[in-house]
Amino acid sequence: MTPQLLSDIHAVILAGGSGTRFWPLSREACPKQMLQIVGEDTLLRQTIKRINGFVPTENIWIVTTEDKAQDTKFHLLPMGSLTEKIQFIREPLGRNTAPAIGLAAVYLNHLSPNSVMVVMPSDHAIPENEKFLSDLKVAIEGAKEDNLVTFGIKPNRPETGYGYIKIVNHMKTESKGLLRVERFVEKPDLEKAKTYISNSSYFWNSGIFVWKTSKILSEIQIHLPPLYQTLKAIESLLFQLDKPKELNEPNKLYELYSSLDPVSIDYGIMERSLNVLMVPATFQWSDLGSWSALDEVVDKDKEGNILKGNTIDIGSQNSIIFSGERLVATIGLQDMVVVDTPDATLVTPKERVQEVRKIVETLKQKGREEHLIHKTVERPWGSYTVLEKGEGYKIKRVVLKPGARLSLQLHRKRSEHWVVVSGIAKVTRDNETYLVHTNESTYIPIHTKHRLENPQGGFLQIIEVQNGNYLEEDDIERFSDDYDRI
Amino acid sequence: MTPQLLSDIHAVILAGGSGTRFWPLSREACPKQMLQIVGEDTLLRQTIKRINGFVPTENIWIVTTEDKAQDTKFHLLPMGSLTEKIQFIREPLGRNTAPAIGLAAVYLNHLSPNSVMVVMPSDHAIPENEKFLSDLKVAIEGAKEDNLVTFGIKPNRPETGYGYIKIVNHMKTESKGLLRVERFVEKPDLEKAKTYISNSSYFWNSGIFVWKTSKILSEIQIHLPPLYQTLKAIESLLFQLDKPKELNEPNKLYELYSSLDPVSIDYGIMERSLNVLMVPATFQWSDLGSWSALDEVVDKDKEGNILKGNTIDIGSQNSIIFSGERLVATIGLQDMVVVDTPDATLVTPKERVQEVRKIVETLKQKGREEHLIHKTVERPWGSYTVLEKGEGYKIKRVVLKPGARLSLQLHRKRSEHWVVVSGIAKVTRDNETYLVHTNESTYIPIHTKHRLENPQGGFLQIIEVQNGNYLEEDDIERFSDDYDRI
Repeated sequence: MTPQLLSDIHAVILAGGSGTRFWPLSREACPKQMLQIVGEDTLLRQTIKRINGFVPTENIWIVTTEDKAQDTKFHLLPMGSLTEKIQFIREPLGRNTAPAIGLAAVYLNHLSPNSVMVVMPSDHAIPENEKFLSDLKVAIEGAKEDNLVTFGIKPNRPETGYGYIKIVNHMKTESKGLLRVERFVEKPDLEKAKTYISNSSYFWNSGIFVWKTSKILSEIQIHLPPLYQTLKAIESLLFQLDKPKELNEPNKLYELYSSLDPVSIDYGIMERSLNVLMVPATFQWSDLGSWSALDEVVDKDKEGNILKGNTIDIGSQNSIIFSGERLVATIGLQDMVVVDTPDATLVTPKERVQEVRKIVETLKQKGREEHLIHKTVERPWGSYTVLEKGEGYKIKRVVLKPGARLSLQLHRKRSEHWVVVSGIAKVTRDNETYLVHTNESTYIPIHTKHRLENPQGGFLQIIEVQNGNYLEEDDIERFSDDYDRI
Repeated sequence: MTPQLLSDIHAVILAGGSGTRFWPLSREACPKQMLQIVGEDTLLRQTIKRINGFVPTENIWIVTTEDKAQDTKFHLLPMGSLTEKIQFIREPLGRNTAPAIGLAAVYLNHLSPNSVMVVMPSDHAIPENEKFLSDLKVAIEGAKEDNLVTFGIKPNRPETGYGYIKIVNHMKTESKGLLRVERFVEKPDLEKAKTYISNSSYFWNSGIFVWKTSKILSEIQIHLPPLYQTLKAIESLLFQLDKPKELNEPNKLYELYSSLDPVSIDYGIMERSLNVLMVPATFQWSDLGSWSALDEVVDKDKEGNILKGNTIDIGSQNSIIFSGERLVATIGLQDMVVVDTPDATLVTPKERVQEVRKIVETLKQKGREEHLIHKTVERPWGSYTVLEKGEGYKIKRVVLKPGARLSLQLHRKRSEHWVVVSGIAKVTRDNETYLVHTNESTYIPIHTKHRLENPQGGFLQIIEVQNGNYLEEDDIERFSDDYDRI
């Protein structure tokens, strides 16, 4: 493959999912793609690493919703210089995969009409990168010949949680390792799944797709005409104004986008198109659809357990026990899932993990917070952990990376006491700037402009005691920020 | 019964147990008798209320070990004026029930040679007080005729966790409702337990005993002569010096007491004595030997679950789910026990709850702390909660009751920042005394005498950030204390 070709290939990573099925580890502000549950990095960053270098970093596009975009950008910061080059496509709100892919196709088609786009979910596990890239090359060749190309995974169990792909004839290969798809099959019941697994014409649908931008747009025109019309309108809105990467008419865009039917690309296009080919994947794959999916991709101990964090177990088997710093003690569990986080614990048999969604639903209905954010929130400058909330006060541990600083800010409804427990803080308060050493404290009165900074090479750690009647994160007015949050 | 008679009756409450089987709710510093797991008060306070009024409060004796005595006294403070009247017998260390009861008998026999002692464990559940007292009257009559009297519980299941009592003839009553005991039977296997339950001559051994102090001492003389010899030596030590309620020769006492064999009263006396009668109990009873014992004494919902605290459950059955403020979400559990505390969570099937002991053993071996104290520690002046421990710092929330104050104290290895989050604090620091209002802070340098006081009618709440290289509770020098801890 020539460098010329590669620059015509774009990777579109779908990162709009909320991943409630990994609660309590996943939260609205920390969806599944931002979790490190398999492998040595988070799923999103693994996905980027998987494709980066195969395509130029500038050709990596992340599609996510407006409300997740900033956190997603922050999430990429540990990737260093890559971060600046990766491009974002912001959906005004989530409308399932067909609109998301359509929006990306509009962008890419405008940029480079003959380019090939590789659509990748951001929250799947694919441990064997070389095999994936090798299969991807085959798919790209098929895509260039105006096919929609997908990847089929050879089933090893009668899985009811996946959609299936039926090929026309498992012996007959189209050119260069591609098989013709007869149809896409929705998630089957166990009975049907058992027949599929004994039939070599059935594969799991991996949700990874390769096609030319022009081709997917013409398929959308055929099979989802209302989506096509709206995409054309969005295209005029975005590009007539000659600011291709900015959403300069956010209200109009929101109006257009929110009018779309939330339909999946599988249901809207793949099940209907007559031009679908499949690469039989040689790589291992899991969509990590639930906690029990870890069994497929994580090494187990000799009793079949996956134990992580601060755990003590006596005689459990085939169980998944995820803890952090708190102690989780388990005795004699069989096929169970126990997930512990600082503010919530889940206990369920593996066979009922899908119902975690109902727990999250219940939390929403009750106006609770355990599905929204974690006690520890990662920020580009470091992190903060809510240690306790009480009537009229909130206590945080705030950690600043070497050289980092928070925004110059002001609170209208709270004052703050800061006690430095390690490092040296540089504090700006109104017009004065001073140092606060370990075991010293300072006070930020209400309505006072202030800034916290770590001027040194080590980490700075402070304990912040907030006082006030309203102590939410939105009581903040920023005057200057290193991370463009004003 | 005449008042004269009642004043000759003493209640001896055994409160030396550590109750590891209720971990993580029970801790070394918060044993089972101090837990409110059944009914509206802790088990120890329920035990005291059960007998108080039947005997004068001055006749209630609590036998506990030296290291638990202060915490046990503090635990009784909510009982108000009763607290002052209840008497303590302090064992230098735990040596099982025969020495504990022998020591109490020595005290009582010295005080009032013809008195009857009612021996009660402090950590059992007896919800029907009237029935208990009615049966107790029958037992006392038997005890006055120089018998050892016990209470037998009619079994309703083949329990292998209890000892059994076999009576001579279940139809033949001795005078006034008492049955003659043929023998005590140790915990049986399931096979045997099943035969016992179908035989009306077998009862559960409740561990509640009534006898004259002179009688139990003469039985000890017969069946446990070495214990008797040591008890005589302890008697001389304690009472020749004419300070009957103080252990004025602690080292000598320790030496004598620690030389004793740790033997239970059941094994040492009850299985051997020829003078044992039994009252067939009319009251409901459980020894609460493990988490699964709650099933016998706590009301369940229609699915057979016992849910407490911050829980969300979907479709569990016959399970016990105990939480505090943290959320515990459970799905489809069957016959499981989940117990959550701020620093540790336990998950186990009911049938394996006995193995909780092994978890505690593991924690001890590893030098961990989750079996020692809770994050929140109740004190007579209020409570403190460890919110976080880190390298060089520890954060506590400290709550003071109205009018309460801590000791005048000094720390040699740490300084403290105090931020008042509700109420007004009166602070003594070296020679100055000043007020610190809500949203103000103060600093207590290392090596500085200080005192924290709540001068007002409401609760005072402060956040304490400790700094230092050694932050344990034993870094405290007290100069003045309202609770005699100097």
